[in-house]
Amino acid sequence: MKNTKINLSDKFNKFSKYWTPKVVAEMNDYQFKLVKIKGEFVWHNHKDTDEAFIVIDGKMKIDFQNDTINLSKGEMFVIPAGVDHKPYAEEECKIMIIEPKGIVNTGSKTNDLTAPNDAWI
Amino acid sequence: MKNTKINLSDKFNKFSKYWTPKVVAEMNDYQFKLVKIKGEFVWHNHKDTDEAFIVIDGKMKIDFQNDTINLSKGEMFVIPAGVDHKPYAEEECKIMIIEPKGIVNTGSKTNDLTAPNDAWI
Repeated sequence: MKNTKINLSDKFNKFSKYWTPKVVAEMNDYQFKLVKIKGEFVWHNHKDTDEAFIVIDGKMKIDFQNDTINLSKGEMFVIPAGVDHKPYAEEECKIMIIEPKGIVNTGSKTNDLTAPNDAWI
Repeated sequence: MKNTKINLSDKFNKFSKYWTPKVVAEMNDYQFKLVKIKGEFVWHNHKDTDEAFIVIDGKMKIDFQNDTINLSKGEMFVIPAGVDHKPYAEEECKIMIIEPKGIVNTGSKTNDLTAPNDAWI
């Protein structure tokens, strides 16, 4: 059994930089990524795939063009493919993102917030 | 935006039967399922897909042919495709399973523990 169990809290303790997704597990061609977020991200979308957010600790919101979703610890949301969104957290928030391998955090845009892809921790 | 946020605790409060996965969200062709478990499940595998377990509350173990993994709240494990496993929980444990749509909880076997597939809550 090459796989090992993953303790989310232990993994979160291993990094501090915001908006840099860290891969902790793979399932088929999907990845589980942990992200610490604080402040405002950029508007973006993922043209070809849905993207699941699960809040592990803290609070965040996700702005859409005509709506805002508020998420707290123990809540999740699936962003449909192609839908523009902008995550935001007033205080540090710890989230898990589940999406296909190879998805870039800023979608089709590249900017200061574009994080290295497939960065395991 | 047809999607809504999902509060895991609220969803868990809506059912009580053990070993009956309830779908709470879909992401592409994958589903997020909540399961309450207690006691011993059956040996089985999922030939064609990995399967991710996240413990939301409580403790469980997963027996493999030559190994046992103990998982507590905040821990996760990905079971590789085709690997025989048997989940077990001494006390009630709440878990989330992520796997492709259409996967049956008892794998290729059908028995008393085989739950209806695609049961949303």
